[in-house]
Amino acid sequence: MPKFEFDRTGFKTDGRDQFMISGEFHYFRVPAGDWKRRMELFKAAGGNCLATYVPWLIHEPEEGRIVFGDVPNRDLVRFLETAKEVGLQVTLRPGPYQYSELVNDGLPDWLLTGYPEVLAQNIHGEVFRESSVSYLHPLFLEKARKYYRAFAEAVRPYMGDPVTMLQVDNELAGIHVWFGSLDYHPVTMGQGTENGRYPCFLKKKYGTIAALNEAYALNVSSWAEVMPIASGDKSDAAVCRRLQDYYDFYCGTLAEYSCLLTAWLREDGLYAPICHNSANPTMNSMFTETVEAMGEGFLLGSDHYYTLNQMWKQNNPTPQYGIHVYYSMEMMRLMGMPPSVLEMPGGTPADTPPILPEDLLACYMTNLAMGMKGCNYYIYTGGPNFPGTGNTAGIYDYNAHVHADGSLNPTYESLKTFGKFCESHSWMQRGSRRGSAVIGFEWKSTRSADVEYAGQVFTRTDCWEFARLGLMYTMMCSDMAPELVNLDGALDLFRPLIVPCPSVMSAKVQRALIDFAEQGGQLLLLGTLPDLDEEFRPCTLLREYLGSPELKKPFRTGAVVNYAPCGDVYNMTPLHTVEALPEGAEALLTAPRSGQLLGFKKGNVRFMAVKWLMNTFDQPAMLEQLLREMGAVPCVRSSNRNIFTALWEDDKGNRLTMVMNLYSSPQTTEITVYGRNGEVLRTEQLKLAAMEVRVL
Amino acid sequence: MPKFEFDRTGFKTDGRDQFMISGEFHYFRVPAGDWKRRMELFKAAGGNCLATYVPWLIHEPEEGRIVFGDVPNRDLVRFLETAKEVGLQVTLRPGPYQYSELVNDGLPDWLLTGYPEVLAQNIHGEVFRESSVSYLHPLFLEKARKYYRAFAEAVRPYMGDPVTMLQVDNELAGIHVWFGSLDYHPVTMGQGTENGRYPCFLKKKYGTIAALNEAYALNVSSWAEVMPIASGDKSDAAVCRRLQDYYDFYCGTLAEYSCLLTAWLREDGLYAPICHNSANPTMNSMFTETVEAMGEGFLLGSDHYYTLNQMWKQNNPTPQYGIHVYYSMEMMRLMGMPPSVLEMPGGTPADTPPILPEDLLACYMTNLAMGMKGCNYYIYTGGPNFPGTGNTAGIYDYNAHVHADGSLNPTYESLKTFGKFCESHSWMQRGSRRGSAVIGFEWKSTRSADVEYAGQVFTRTDCWEFARLGLMYTMMCSDMAPELVNLDGALDLFRPLIVPCPSVMSAKVQRALIDFAEQGGQLLLLGTLPDLDEEFRPCTLLREYLGSPELKKPFRTGAVVNYAPCGDVYNMTPLHTVEALPEGAEALLTAPRSGQLLGFKKGNVRFMAVKWLMNTFDQPAMLEQLLREMGAVPCVRSSNRNIFTALWEDDKGNRLTMVMNLYSSPQTTEITVYGRNGEVLRTEQLKLAAMEVRVL
Repeated sequence: MPKFEFDRTGFKTDGRDQFMISGEFHYFRVPAGDWKRRMELFKAAGGNCLATYVPWLIHEPEEGRIVFGDVPNRDLVRFLETAKEVGLQVTLRPGPYQYSELVNDGLPDWLLTGYPEVLAQNIHGEVFRESSVSYLHPLFLEKARKYYRAFAEAVRPYMGDPVTMLQVDNELAGIHVWFGSLDYHPVTMGQGTENGRYPCFLKKKYGTIAALNEAYALNVSSWAEVMPIASGDKSDAAVCRRLQDYYDFYCGTLAEYSCLLTAWLREDGLYAPICHNSANPTMNSMFTETVEAMGEGFLLGSDHYYTLNQMWKQNNPTPQYGIHVYYSMEMMRLMGMPPSVLEMPGGTPADTPPILPEDLLACYMTNLAMGMKGCNYYIYTGGPNFPGTGNTAGIYDYNAHVHADGSLNPTYESLKTFGKFCESHSWMQRGSRRGSAVIGFEWKSTRSADVEYAGQVFTRTDCWEFARLGLMYTMMCSDMAPELVNLDGALDLFRPLIVPCPSVMSAKVQRALIDFAEQGGQLLLLGTLPDLDEEFRPCTLLREYLGSPELKKPFRTGAVVNYAPCGDVYNMTPLHTVEALPEGAEALLTAPRSGQLLGFKKGNVRFMAVKWLMNTFDQPAMLEQLLREMGAVPCVRSSNRNIFTALWEDDKGNRLTMVMNLYSSPQTTEITVYGRNGEVLRTEQLKLAAMEVRVL
Repeated sequence: MPKFEFDRTGFKTDGRDQFMISGEFHYFRVPAGDWKRRMELFKAAGGNCLATYVPWLIHEPEEGRIVFGDVPNRDLVRFLETAKEVGLQVTLRPGPYQYSELVNDGLPDWLLTGYPEVLAQNIHGEVFRESSVSYLHPLFLEKARKYYRAFAEAVRPYMGDPVTMLQVDNELAGIHVWFGSLDYHPVTMGQGTENGRYPCFLKKKYGTIAALNEAYALNVSSWAEVMPIASGDKSDAAVCRRLQDYYDFYCGTLAEYSCLLTAWLREDGLYAPICHNSANPTMNSMFTETVEAMGEGFLLGSDHYYTLNQMWKQNNPTPQYGIHVYYSMEMMRLMGMPPSVLEMPGGTPADTPPILPEDLLACYMTNLAMGMKGCNYYIYTGGPNFPGTGNTAGIYDYNAHVHADGSLNPTYESLKTFGKFCESHSWMQRGSRRGSAVIGFEWKSTRSADVEYAGQVFTRTDCWEFARLGLMYTMMCSDMAPELVNLDGALDLFRPLIVPCPSVMSAKVQRALIDFAEQGGQLLLLGTLPDLDEEFRPCTLLREYLGSPELKKPFRTGAVVNYAPCGDVYNMTPLHTVEALPEGAEALLTAPRSGQLLGFKKGNVRFMAVKWLMNTFDQPAMLEQLLREMGAVPCVRSSNRNIFTALWEDDKGNRLTMVMNLYSSPQTTEITVYGRNGEVLRTEQLKLAAMEVRVL
């Protein structure tokens, strides 16, 4: 029986449901004499797996001299044997990149100074960062391949025991997008040639030069003449197509790179599931191509820090963080894998803000509440940096659960409390978070920030922000729990479907929504009615289905709407007034000052031409009313709407409710838990401390 | 004896030192039958003053029909009489603008729909917001003058008792800068004419057309030909001068407007100090012209919210907020007035994030610690919105200390606790926060964000960010308390002066620093050495004084520096390497990897070509060492550097230390308080709850 496995619902060890609880443990930092003790401490706290980078810059200090095991902090084999002895699984992360607050993000100096031609280039052909390479540059791959081979040699005997997973590279795309540019390296991307990657992508998408010329408003006669652009007049659809295509192409190269690294590992006889870590929730959807290309058995996880320094959005886990990790894990679930936080905060490289025990436990419990099935603490324990390799400290303490010097951080208790909870609730691996209604989205709408067609009423970026900070947050403040679905997948006809609608929506999804309505599904459309498809060409299928209502720019409607069953609802932003009711429709939403129409109901479809940011409690009250009318059943009511909840169940009768006070001061609330038919299962008064997550 | 007075140090009531503790109390919202009780509750909680807007849109609902007293919620006189009876002073805020979550920001509908010509215009001549006027538009002034006159009529008998202060307009400039543009209304600003405001400003600054042509790289022959620009090629100094001049000109119009409104009040016989509220700390320095023009006796305060909705930087007071309000109040102190928080959070218009009692008390105590001498709670209590005027709610509850329905919010206790503390510590009105070393800045460097000369090594914007998030934050984490000074004012030779140096620094200030050094002052320069003056013309006085060291762009120095007495210090950003030591200088700071020089000491001047964001504790450790060498004396040491402290003293032997845990979880620390000669006065172990400010 395989020691470690996973499917779309969860993880198993030796056939038993078990949370993957991993701890980042760098053999190249932690003093070797203390490995065993710290590993045992981790196991005692409920851990079952360790993870470590295998830093290229440490193992190949000069080109051609690849060293494993000459000194304790390069002794990967000893590390694996110790883990095996203690009984912990291991995930190895051989890179090439590690980041990890290492010099050159973990790449060897000789590579960057000796072969600067491998560095990524911006649209002007300029290198924009000293240690950001072009992933698929043949010379880079040549050098990396040798390292991977040596790595494989060293670890092959340990595959399966204790090594049960391998990560390819690290936080892909970060080295480019965080430093101002995608990669436009001509050698890698092949623009200006007939058969380079970029022209091949274009050929595959457009088929003929004529089709490309039409799409791009160009007049080229060969694929080699098509050059990418990085900016332009965004009121020009052709410009937007070119920008969007390049972005999709770039994401495709991440997929190709991931597959290539995987192929190397297989060629060298290393068989274990492959994983990769999206750097943060906002980047998850850059990996849709990678997930598809890597196929079944690939684990895309996400990294869920709440703070790494004073510039972050918060110093501690907050409801905003809760929503951030929520959609992140919903995305991973929808991609077909057990949601995994491949970098769960274990500490921080900064001393300020501090990582405090109560905050950390709240973070873990919140991630669990929002969908987590496995995690890897970054980091569990550190030590002195390998000489000459640390970028942020001499000693990589990270304020981790076990300090660099081996002493226990008070946060170790948080680790242990959480570990024990996961152990005693392994049923959650097969369980799921109940949702009252489903929010639908398109994958590409969640990665559109750089590609907006000017003049849209509701850009995909603004619409996705509304989906998160408006709709999801509002549902979190209501007794109607949300669930997400990607609209090009299967839709559940038995629960209301809420779709924040941007101006740009693919024909495929517009048709899917029409089908949903035709089959009797309860559909709530919010925002605008799309008028363009994903190629920025006119597409008004959904509008026409609803009778082609005339939508006008709102004039002096104010930020308040009236929804008759509830009255006035404030802090809303009308996007349109509806000039006349479509045939067969009735009024649904009006602007109280002017009496203008802002939304209508036509059969089982409701349309409200509004967006909002969650602000005042009249908003979730309205949503509760609307959703009840659409047949939704509440999950958990918190009388104090600022307390988030999550109801977990499996098909064997297990149930629990998690109640989250993600604020800095105590709060009280009354919790009502509902059954699947809306019957009250329990009611409870709770006093919650600051940063407390209570489990009922 | 005047009932209410203030000088640069603090407030007095009837000759006694007393914190100004004011509460926003809208007679147009609070039910009149409950005014007295709620006023008494405020007095019982330590309040001594009320404040209210006098909303134009409520008192002049149709043009020409100005109504006071027809209904209880328009009965300003009854409100004043009630306040007088209860024994509370009153600040009246007649506008014209109020904001206050009122429709049209408090302006009457008929004004905006009937006279759209008064609306502010962007550079293209377009109206950019329905309710943003051009403050000095003659037609707007004409309409507002009538309202002011009627207001004066109504309140004149109450001047002095209970009305002791008047605010002109509200959060000036917000209606423009928050909506994307300064005001370029040609009728108001007069561009394109010979004698309009803008050409007059230019005449005053440049004197001759020739001088203007030289500065602006133009070839005009009359003042009327000079048009403002709102954008341009910022690598062109002439463009930057034009942008910066217009910004300064615009700030000058705020001064003119404030003086005009004040003149109206005086003409109508209303004599009381005038105040105005900068919308937030970042906008304080937009009012330097206003402060100068209004002269002695004018009170510029600032509004210090920590959150008003989910989009704010934090859900509760944080150290970052602490630094934000710190520099804000230092600025007000340096402008010559008792630092006043004219809108101190009393609640929020949003229901999420919630305003919690512990957070609120921590907020008040933090503002006190950081310099506050007076405050006005926004709001203390509210009620139903005057029909048709509310923009965010039907009932303006604001989650205030006393709810709209009259019930006590748990936050009332926070109000009371703080009120009692202020009452029993009135000596702090004459006291001051002790500083170990002084941070110097130029006023215009704190408002440069829109006017950056491209190609600078260290823009004023980045430098000011370093001053706040690097230097101030680092000092807050050290035992060396900061104090600010504006470098065009008097400098204290007896304490070290630390100057974050941008590329642009006026000749006046460069000379002031040279004088300071010549007189033996200990000077620490951080960042770059200026090479331009405030007109973007070459000015290297300071560089030359230090021997014109050759500064080069750093290459692969890494983010770590070596300061010999401390060793390696991480997470630093070198801006230059120093190619050779100037004559008479010694090495001070090096890049450990390359050995390159990053800073030197020449006599009593130290220069370090670095900036940083406060990140790891080696940074404050280095600063403590440096400052000790420069003769600074520590104030308070917190063993846990994430706990901020403030040491308050007066010249009568009163002293207290405030210890702030502005995090969401408990922390412990050991506090050591030092006397003026560095002697240990006391040591204490403290366990602090989340959001606790302890006073020793």
